[in-house]
Amino acid sequence: MRSQSRRTNRNPIISLLTDFGLIDPFVAEMKAVILSICPQAKIIDVSHEIEKFDIRMGAFTLAEAAPCFPTGTIHVAVVDPGVGSSRRAIVVETRGGTYVGPDNGLLMPAAEREGIAGVFEITNRSFMREPVSSTFHGRDIFASTAAHLANGRRLAECGPMIQDYMKSPFQPAKIHGGHADCEVMHIDSFGNVITNLTRTHFSQLNLRKGVNVSIHVGRKTLRGTAIETYADLRRGQVGLMIGSHDFVELACRESNAARRLGVRRGSVVRVSGF
Amino acid sequence: MRSQSRRTNRNPIISLLTDFGLIDPFVAEMKAVILSICPQAKIIDVSHEIEKFDIRMGAFTLAEAAPCFPTGTIHVAVVDPGVGSSRRAIVVETRGGTYVGPDNGLLMPAAEREGIAGVFEITNRSFMREPVSSTFHGRDIFASTAAHLANGRRLAECGPMIQDYMKSPFQPAKIHGGHADCEVMHIDSFGNVITNLTRTHFSQLNLRKGVNVSIHVGRKTLRGTAIETYADLRRGQVGLMIGSHDFVELACRESNAARRLGVRRGSVVRVSGF
Amino acid sequence: MRSQSRRTNRNPIISLLTDFGLIDPFVAEMKAVILSICPQAKIIDVSHEIEKFDIRMGAFTLAEAAPCFPTGTIHVAVVDPGVGSSRRAIVVETRGGTYVGPDNGLLMPAAEREGIAGVFEITNRSFMREPVSSTFHGRDIFASTAAHLANGRRLAECGPMIQDYMKSPFQPAKIHGGHADCEVMHIDSFGNVITNLTRTHFSQLNLRKGVNVSIHVGRKTLRGTAIETYADLRRGQVGLMIGSHDFVELACRESNAARRLGVRRGSVVRVSGF
Repeated sequence: MRSQSRRTNRNPIISLLTDFGLIDPFVAEMKAVILSICPQAKIIDVSHEIEKFDIRMGAFTLAEAAPCFPTGTIHVAVVDPGVGSSRRAIVVETRGGTYVGPDNGLLMPAAEREGIAGVFEITNRSFMREPVSSTFHGRDIFASTAAHLANGRRLAECGPMIQDYMKSPFQPAKIHGGHADCEVMHIDSFGNVITNLTRTHFSQLNLRKGVNVSIHVGRKTLRGTAIETYADLRRGQVGLMIGSHDFVELACRESNAARRLGVRRGSVVRVSGF
Repeated sequence: MRSQSRRTNRNPIISLLTDFGLIDPFVAEMKAVILSICPQAKIIDVSHEIEKFDIRMGAFTLAEAAPCFPTGTIHVAVVDPGVGSSRRAIVVETRGGTYVGPDNGLLMPAAEREGIAGVFEITNRSFMREPVSSTFHGRDIFASTAAHLANGRRLAECGPMIQDYMKSPFQPAKIHGGHADCEVMHIDSFGNVITNLTRTHFSQLNLRKGVNVSIHVGRKTLRGTAIETYADLRRGQVGLMIGSHDFVELACRESNAARRLGVRRGSVVRVSGF
Repeated sequence: MRSQSRRTNRNPIISLLTDFGLIDPFVAEMKAVILSICPQAKIIDVSHEIEKFDIRMGAFTLAEAAPCFPTGTIHVAVVDPGVGSSRRAIVVETRGGTYVGPDNGLLMPAAEREGIAGVFEITNRSFMREPVSSTFHGRDIFASTAAHLANGRRLAECGPMIQDYMKSPFQPAKIHGGHADCEVMHIDSFGNVITNLTRTHFSQLNLRKGVNVSIHVGRKTLRGTAIETYADLRRGQVGLMIGSHDFVELACRESNAARRLGVRRGSVVRVSGF
């Protein structure tokens, strides 16, 4: 396993995702701890505006972002309603990188996309910042562990390998007959509606550019058209396309598709051919 | 031309300006792509809170910020309602640095301030991240191109030099007789009203500290006073001064001048001596 | 004094705290100035979302964050309603690091926590960016001075040592009899209510896990329980605990304690045993 042979990376990259927001100094404290331990780390903020305690939103955002990072990146993610309880702290080794965070499913969609090589519980106090507070494991356990790993310490030193970690909170979309039952995973800040339909589903449904579809949301049915890019749409028209993260999204040109469709995260959407 | 002889900068600086916001991972993906290609790049966020699709606001913000950066900085700016359409991707070489972004006028106010040395269309696929998505050129073309340039590749390799690029979306202010007709370019988060009047106009209008002026907005006329700094104002008084970016701004001490004057971006304001 | 013998740090860390927000390019300009002078600086944002002109909120946030930073960090803080007036620009040397900002009390709670070794007025123009604007000392004096110090210049070169600097804007909490009169210093983005009670006060009041207390806010009295971590609470219950910054905070599990208690920053809260 790669973790056994890792050597010190001269330019280690650590990504951070939290629900801490940018008003309070929490994120800065995590960065300060990282640079105290590993001064050469390059830190990239993925997002700190995840809705408080929303593990699904955090998990999805991390899964979107992770494929762009170089191999070997260490991702720290903290959306952690169970901080201070008995929920475990874990490190996940994948073919693409390393994930550090709480054992609540948050890390799994991203890690599964890359292929999980092993999950370790963090129990070794020498990876932690002492004293470990009971309310801020993001700083005292996760950031600290990430920085030690960036310094070249082995994953297996963190603690025992475990098998009974929490799995991804997401269900895959279902295709049956000519339609797909999918879920709204995320609405981005442009109002684009990102579903759990993937590029593979898109092909299975024979959705080539110009093909018309029906989009069912609750009791409402709208017409949509398969497109390749936002610019293929006339203003106000609803388009269905493979987005930049390989998930199928519903979009309106220069306007808010989520508002037009009346959906929110978690809404169920059925897409069917005419 | 400088671009022909550029050598690798050991500490290249890349600045980023977008309308992507900080909730979604888009900005992080751009940074991940940059560090994948050029691990030694130093990345500075100019702003990611430009209003969606507001090219003018993006252009103004970039023009404000750029003069503070060291010579040789590579500025990436993405406010790009035409992504995926036939609008071109460009690189602009100036006396101060390099600008990468869409050909929609966004880069031009900043670039013109420094003096444009050449504009190149980006057509060389080896500067792009493959596959190029149709919706996220910020990541797949602009960030990627900037990182390759930071690695020392020549601008002329990006693609052909072009002359018919989009020009700046701004009009200069007009001085006639004793008054100036100007436009509100920006309202900063303190409520200061930044106009397209420059330091030169300020002198032409003989606005020395203590001089009184009339400020006409719509049918309303207010009194103002030329000042040097916010602290020259009594609370509630309206001041007119050269701001920190060499544009003339209207300010109220510790209160919101824009609300007081009832202006928004794009409002026309006439300033005249008594 | 350490400032006399400081040598160049190979990885100097500069932290930034302002009330500038992230829409405008002000923060980027400070970073651009820093990297122009000291290209190897590592810059960490503490917060730029301090409420405009709110020196107390800035001071508290800086005091929370600073202890996590490595020794030798240079902290720049700018909440500066008096910019352009006769208020002085200062550098504060402590046992832990260096603080740069306006002489309005903003730096003092953090600096006092570390132990103040000396305060210098910044008068030496060679530490400033010329021309010094009258409205943006954050860029032209504070960022510039921090970068020169990061390059190894001595604090005593900045200007004369002074004794009559502004002190901390905070009062310590008072314990008398079995109760504590404290003040709400901050409400974090989770709604946790952070008071000026410290770990020492917590012991003085004999607040061990499970002890019940009365919390008096205005005419209202609520029951609370001393806890160690959020997970010790039942949903809806009010807990009292030592937070991650060693201040006592009032919390509700996965809900907003400030709303529940009806307090805001500056509110007076009395905590008493049963």
